[in-house]
Amino acid sequence: MSNQEYFPKGFRAAGVACGLKRDGQLDLALIASDRPCAAAALFTTNRVKAAPVLYDQEILARTDATVRAVIANTGSANACTGEDGLARTRHTAQTVAQALGCAPDEVLVLSTGVIGLPLPLEPIERGIAELQTELSRDGWPFAAQAIMTTDTRAKLGGLIYPEGYIFTGIAKGAGMIAPNMATMLCVIATDAEIERDLLQRALQRAADASFNRIVVDGDMSTNDTVIALANGASGVRVTDEDALVTALQAICTSLAQEIVRDGEGATKFVTVHVTGAPDEDSARQVARAIATSALVKTAFYGADPNWGRILCAAGYSGVEVQPERMALWLLDAAGEDAIQLVERGEPSDYDEQAAIALMQEPEWGVRLDLGLGKESTWVWTCDLSHEYVSINGHYRT
Amino acid sequence: MSNQEYFPKGFRAAGVACGLKRDGQLDLALIASDRPCAAAALFTTNRVKAAPVLYDQEILARTDATVRAVIANTGSANACTGEDGLARTRHTAQTVAQALGCAPDEVLVLSTGVIGLPLPLEPIERGIAELQTELSRDGWPFAAQAIMTTDTRAKLGGLIYPEGYIFTGIAKGAGMIAPNMATMLCVIATDAEIERDLLQRALQRAADASFNRIVVDGDMSTNDTVIALANGASGVRVTDEDALVTALQAICTSLAQEIVRDGEGATKFVTVHVTGAPDEDSARQVARAIATSALVKTAFYGADPNWGRILCAAGYSGVEVQPERMALWLLDAAGEDAIQLVERGEPSDYDEQAAIALMQEPEWGVRLDLGLGKESTWVWTCDLSHEYVSINGHYRT
Repeated sequence: MSNQEYFPKGFRAAGVACGLKRDGQLDLALIASDRPCAAAALFTTNRVKAAPVLYDQEILARTDATVRAVIANTGSANACTGEDGLARTRHTAQTVAQALGCAPDEVLVLSTGVIGLPLPLEPIERGIAELQTELSRDGWPFAAQAIMTTDTRAKLGGLIYPEGYIFTGIAKGAGMIAPNMATMLCVIATDAEIERDLLQRALQRAADASFNRIVVDGDMSTNDTVIALANGASGVRVTDEDALVTALQAICTSLAQEIVRDGEGATKFVTVHVTGAPDEDSARQVARAIATSALVKTAFYGADPNWGRILCAAGYSGVEVQPERMALWLLDAAGEDAIQLVERGEPSDYDEQAAIALMQEPEWGVRLDLGLGKESTWVWTCDLSHEYVSINGHYRT
Repeated sequence: MSNQEYFPKGFRAAGVACGLKRDGQLDLALIASDRPCAAAALFTTNRVKAAPVLYDQEILARTDATVRAVIANTGSANACTGEDGLARTRHTAQTVAQALGCAPDEVLVLSTGVIGLPLPLEPIERGIAELQTELSRDGWPFAAQAIMTTDTRAKLGGLIYPEGYIFTGIAKGAGMIAPNMATMLCVIATDAEIERDLLQRALQRAADASFNRIVVDGDMSTNDTVIALANGASGVRVTDEDALVTALQAICTSLAQEIVRDGEGATKFVTVHVTGAPDEDSARQVARAIATSALVKTAFYGADPNWGRILCAAGYSGVEVQPERMALWLLDAAGEDAIQLVERGEPSDYDEQAAIALMQEPEWGVRLDLGLGKESTWVWTCDLSHEYVSINGHYRT
């Protein structure tokens, strides 16, 4: 099987270096389909939305919208740039449309980088010309690389179905990641034929169980976007929503987890599992409070089983927890209860050294049982390290 | 004027080293009044409340409660310690009552330190015996020192009124500080005569304008307590609520600001001022989102005028902000608009080097005008530094 066969038919991808990043790193990505795609998308809920978000939303608001290409630049988020920013997004789409011979409103635009900088059109125009010649069916790894910002590695995932269709996804994450899908970009493409409304419903469900469960620093960005494209080039039609959710969720989960593993300065990947909640919303609220707490995340960093901070975060989550009903475990890498730290709100008689040793591992978890019901949820988070502060204290300088 | 005359009549204070901290540092504080005090208090809203919080709340729930002493220990927060923790708090109060010859229910208890550790009674008993001999009218600085945890300096404030009464306050802060008065302890004593309900109302108002406006890391602790005691020993009666609020607020503000200045790892004291809000709640929500954002706080640390992160935080605050109406300024140390960074949601033409220079100062601010109304508020926060991570990654080890 050639490398090509790992990627969906009828799509071509590429990443080039057009000068948006220093040192000649790849910084502009293009994904193109040789036929119109059904497109679904999820966008940031931040009230401050970047120009490309507003632009893409406008395009996809039309019921007859189809998509032929997605262009993604780094270097500038094109957010807080007003009318001029929107004009530059439109110009970018037009340039791509010209290069590919499609309509401008068949081109979606993604931007990531510093807020408030004007989108530099000149290098992007040059880059698009180069992308046009670089596009290939197996160019996805280059596209994945070209959308990285503070990511330390490219994020690429895929599924190949024996029925003859393929899903490929790329994502970028790093900082500003929080539930409701903060600073991250993701593009998933499949050559299955999928009706647009079905694709949208399934993407929403898949994101709820993946991208909306990840926390790096609790900030939510102006640019977050997840796009799914289905071009039907395989000739296989997918109509079962649950099966489609399963496929999308598999890709989204692996990309979402990669984003957390590669969180800014992250040294540990921690699953925060909340059980025994009266309802799922409460579980989510508690899990989020724990996963966002700077004190909890620094204790994770220091491999310090300072469980009091976890109970404390649950206590201020807004949920009416009852301390004397809470139980807490450290989970091993497989997600199994390993060491009980708290029983009925008080410390268990656990082996401190064993707890520290477990927390020094790169992947583990905690499970907080609230003792208030049967609902549960989990989120994935990382620790808060010196490196996070270094990266974000001097991002622009 | 002797040193004594700086402190309220009829109160004595002391701090001793009883072995709760290493290296012989002061770790146990006692404040005693030679007559019953009217007492007011505010407690953490965390659902997980430490034993001393539950104990003090029970005492102060009685309408005829009067207070003769406050004992405060470091080393253990006595939180998540169940019935045994409550028994140890009661035992501490009894020991103090015996030493001072008052009733156990006239003694309030404060604890701060690690959650989940049993309160070590033996050193505390020894310490109380020593405190008894150390108590003196001018012992407040030692009490202030003895309640420090990760604080780097003692926090002591006072007001001397020509009418003949004095207010003295001590506080501890450092990490886990957030609106609604997270991990901090504060005791204010006055020899004015103040009716209890009036004292409670005034303390609440003063705290709303001071302790409830400070953010270090957004965490809210299990132990936060502010206590005000009035013993009437000056013979001067205070009945004007506004005047009393002014006095308490002056002390609370100076202690609250000291807590932020001395926040864990803090290198900068930043006022986040939000104006042009449709209502005060919205202003508070936006200010809090900005002051709590890890991305904003690391940019403060790096003196990086990365204003996009501020607008971004406003965007996800939950308030329906309109990006194109927002304006943002850097404020100088006096709180005056110094450099406009954003106008109508887009970058102003400002001098980047001047902005960086201003942000390198230890005290400055930002003002975000939402352009949506006339209400405003402010909070005080600090930056998020490498040192914060060092302190909290290895607090116990």
